[in-house]
Amino acid sequence: MANTKKSKLKIIPLGGLEAIGMNITAFEYEDSIIVVDCGLAFPEDDMYGIDLCIPDITYLKDNIDRVKGFFITHGHEDHIGALPYVLREINVPIYATKLTIGIIDHKLGEHNMLNKVKRKVVKYGQHINLGCFRVEFIKTNHSIQDAAALAIYSPAGTVVHTGDFKVDYTPVYGDAIDLQRFGEIGKKGVLALMCDSTNAERPGFTMTERKVGKTFESIFSDHTHQRIIVATFASNVDRVQQIINTAYKFGRKVVVEGRSMVNIISIASELGYLNIPDNTLIEVDQLKNYPDEKTVLITTGSQGEPLAALSRMANGIHRKVKIQPNDLIVFSSNPIPGNEKAVSKIINDLYRQSADVIFQDTHVSGHACQEEIKLIYSLLHPKYAIPVHGEFKHRKAQAGVAAELGMDKEHILMISSGDVLEIDEDGAEVVGKVPAGSVFVDGLGVGDVGNIVMRDRQHLAEDGIIIVVLTLQGGSGQLLAGPDIVSRGFVYVRGSESLMDEAQHLLNEHVTDLTDRGITDWGKIKTEIKDSLGEFVWKKTKRRPMIIPIIMEV
Amino acid sequence: MANTKKSKLKIIPLGGLEAIGMNITAFEYEDSIIVVDCGLAFPEDDMYGIDLCIPDITYLKDNIDRVKGFFITHGHEDHIGALPYVLREINVPIYATKLTIGIIDHKLGEHNMLNKVKRKVVKYGQHINLGCFRVEFIKTNHSIQDAAALAIYSPAGTVVHTGDFKVDYTPVYGDAIDLQRFGEIGKKGVLALMCDSTNAERPGFTMTERKVGKTFESIFSDHTHQRIIVATFASNVDRVQQIINTAYKFGRKVVVEGRSMVNIISIASELGYLNIPDNTLIEVDQLKNYPDEKTVLITTGSQGEPLAALSRMANGIHRKVKIQPNDLIVFSSNPIPGNEKAVSKIINDLYRQSADVIFQDTHVSGHACQEEIKLIYSLLHPKYAIPVHGEFKHRKAQAGVAAELGMDKEHILMISSGDVLEIDEDGAEVVGKVPAGSVFVDGLGVGDVGNIVMRDRQHLAEDGIIIVVLTLQGGSGQLLAGPDIVSRGFVYVRGSESLMDEAQHLLNEHVTDLTDRGITDWGKIKTEIKDSLGEFVWKKTKRRPMIIPIIMEV
Repeated sequence: MANTKKSKLKIIPLGGLEAIGMNITAFEYEDSIIVVDCGLAFPEDDMYGIDLCIPDITYLKDNIDRVKGFFITHGHEDHIGALPYVLREINVPIYATKLTIGIIDHKLGEHNMLNKVKRKVVKYGQHINLGCFRVEFIKTNHSIQDAAALAIYSPAGTVVHTGDFKVDYTPVYGDAIDLQRFGEIGKKGVLALMCDSTNAERPGFTMTERKVGKTFESIFSDHTHQRIIVATFASNVDRVQQIINTAYKFGRKVVVEGRSMVNIISIASELGYLNIPDNTLIEVDQLKNYPDEKTVLITTGSQGEPLAALSRMANGIHRKVKIQPNDLIVFSSNPIPGNEKAVSKIINDLYRQSADVIFQDTHVSGHACQEEIKLIYSLLHPKYAIPVHGEFKHRKAQAGVAAELGMDKEHILMISSGDVLEIDEDGAEVVGKVPAGSVFVDGLGVGDVGNIVMRDRQHLAEDGIIIVVLTLQGGSGQLLAGPDIVSRGFVYVRGSESLMDEAQHLLNEHVTDLTDRGITDWGKIKTEIKDSLGEFVWKKTKRRPMIIPIIMEV
Repeated sequence: MANTKKSKLKIIPLGGLEAIGMNITAFEYEDSIIVVDCGLAFPEDDMYGIDLCIPDITYLKDNIDRVKGFFITHGHEDHIGALPYVLREINVPIYATKLTIGIIDHKLGEHNMLNKVKRKVVKYGQHINLGCFRVEFIKTNHSIQDAAALAIYSPAGTVVHTGDFKVDYTPVYGDAIDLQRFGEIGKKGVLALMCDSTNAERPGFTMTERKVGKTFESIFSDHTHQRIIVATFASNVDRVQQIINTAYKFGRKVVVEGRSMVNIISIASELGYLNIPDNTLIEVDQLKNYPDEKTVLITTGSQGEPLAALSRMANGIHRKVKIQPNDLIVFSSNPIPGNEKAVSKIINDLYRQSADVIFQDTHVSGHACQEEIKLIYSLLHPKYAIPVHGEFKHRKAQAGVAAELGMDKEHILMISSGDVLEIDEDGAEVVGKVPAGSVFVDGLGVGDVGNIVMRDRQHLAEDGIIIVVLTLQGGSGQLLAGPDIVSRGFVYVRGSESLMDEAQHLLNEHVTDLTDRGITDWGKIKTEIKDSLGEFVWKKTKRRPMIIPIIMEV
């Protein structure tokens, strides 16, 4: 490029700014694009039948020759979950820390993509040169190990992306967040800070993970005569480590249940992130060989997920573990917003089986509260703040914190997914818009369920369907058979015989009248059927089922 | 009745013990049945298309000659909402306090039933004799005025039903809960206490409603340059009174928006429960005549209900009120479990329009916490405790409080809806089971959407539908037309042409083969179509749409 004038850096978030989930941001400078994170989002309640949502990467596909690689901050689904789908279209190398790559490898293996994609393990402090960019990985703390912040050095300036983080001075595994390095980078000058907003509404500090370990100690020492079942997030290896440590101290054997937890634990112990004392872990089938009070189960399902191990136990459909009246179930998690009712349901189910349940003081968050956010801002002193990772209200709360620290309000940038932000020392401005949003994954289909299909599903879910079929003579348009009526999800027909009889009668008359009048235009016949049946049903029931007329010709 | 032996009292809850909602309990002694409350429940997320749920009253219908009347504790939907449906089948008098009857009257009016049902206003302290029962109304406090506890005197002993209550020593309107009368009744001996469990998990005391008034004062005095919009529960008249008082004090005009709120306010002021200073209330159309900072809107929608006034304002589809950048929106409510995400969505929408939002310290609960529950138990000293009004976990928490007070654990009865509890001084025992559960109301239909229809709706919602139509020659079974394929909610067809083409091809071959082989059994043809198409679609998409084969004969 022979620009005389220095180019600006473009920051293009393709997801993650409307909700917690689907984090992915492109950084573009001249002919280089790098992408930070590539996460999925779980579907909202009204996205019927959808398994998961991945970001719209049209912009990356349109600029595929310039995309150099993915930098992944940590191994949570909202940061790595879309990789198997996105890499099929944009196959570039992935850079991440060791455990993160371990988890990505497992995921790519499940999709038979392990040999098709380059992955590179990066150490904290290491710098990766890619196109116009240099990217440094900085140690942070989070509810999964090996989380990193990224310092992204570009000719237009340095951007620091925190990833998901908290400040834990006494983490269970490894070092505390590298505050010194944040200070050092800050001293050299930071153009923009993209900081985690998840807990920005909460004052104070997030507690250290070790606090939960203390709670486990007191729970285990208070309940020496019960089997203990601890439900927590599969990926929180430090949490699992603390449960195992406590179990070992109290002479209990540990069983791990739930596919995702078994996976992560095996990856983490293989890579040395989890230290399991000999003879502590047993298989679920061996449970019967030990007295209840000498066992602990660690399980998935703390969010009330209906298919997870804990739900299956609570519903009595787990093949190997039955809840017993004396069991103590510890929820080592808080319900993520939206899951409150599902979690309550499980708690009720457990109580109904006379189990004990504990769900207080058994969890700490993995995200920074206001005082930690202030600390990072104060170490980095960025020129611009771009709050990320959160709903609007979370990001606005971070904007408030930044303003409180004395930042110029014009320099606090509330952007949206799809915005193209041009930024350098001279200014920052949204200069355009690229496609961004959710692509639905349903079964094997990626993107084949769009808004029309979703609207149909919503309609079907609310009111059901009535199908009207008739056969006409080709040419003459004479009615040969039908109209036949079939309904599903509308009313229970045996209980509504008179309603359906009346509808049939109405249609018979209407269709006969149409064909008698020599009307052969299928479009007209279908419209008339829809209108008259729709009106009849609305009058009688105040419902609007989907009405599908189908005409056959012989 | 010529029983030599004294009969037992039967307590039969027909709803309200599995969730918060649908409260209704029958009390039966020999030839008399009285019913306490008759509430509805709002549908769960997976009850597609359902407007509301009402209790199964089969037992009351089967014993209709013995049912003497309904006693209603207060005017909330989960206590009165099923009356218009239930009274159609069991038309007996309703007894309640003045405001409660006012609200019931309005509801019956909407259903054109006002002239068909007897209602009787009861005063606190008044006793109603009905069959073998005498029922006394006792003053309590709650988030709606005129709430009552009931002392139900039967030959087998006295049962006290608290209704929904809290202890408010300084209520906004009227008197504090009549603790003296609770003490007096307790001294005479109480067989059983049925006490509200909603807040039984929470330690301490629920704050007085007046505390919210203090918060309003400080909010209004801190925000003198903004229009204020307060969202709260329509039925909390005391809350509305405090907002009006504060508005009046700060010289603001008040607009009330939202149908249910307008209704309740007009009932309450007509009956003297709300005191609106002259020239304070204005119509929404008059807003333009006043400066923003001299107005307050009180509105529904604090739970994120998508059709309520606040949602429509936040989405820009309210016909008369537009959110402005300087507006202050106060949520005077906590999200009810399950509504968290809907409330967050509105907050995000409001922030996006640069409005301010306050949602802390602006609400107090209407339900008793643990210390208040202890107080009521200590005043009444019941022989038996029957925790009511709550999910299992709430009721279990109350059971824990009762046990802590020293009650015999055998005398704390955790029963379920549909249980027939026989009780007297000599013992208490569940002796049978009657039908209980939710009857779905969808549009005009009551009970015509049952489990089969619901399962179909769930199936349609998750995976959509494929309809296969074909016309056969009568007699010969020769294929005259089709198979034609129509799908909805499955995949977007234009994007999946090859999939649907393949499916069409497969069906053509399969059906031709069947008819060529002379198979004319419609059942067999339909099964084969379902199986082969189902297998094909599953293999290609990992989805299982509903498949409906329809055969016509000419």
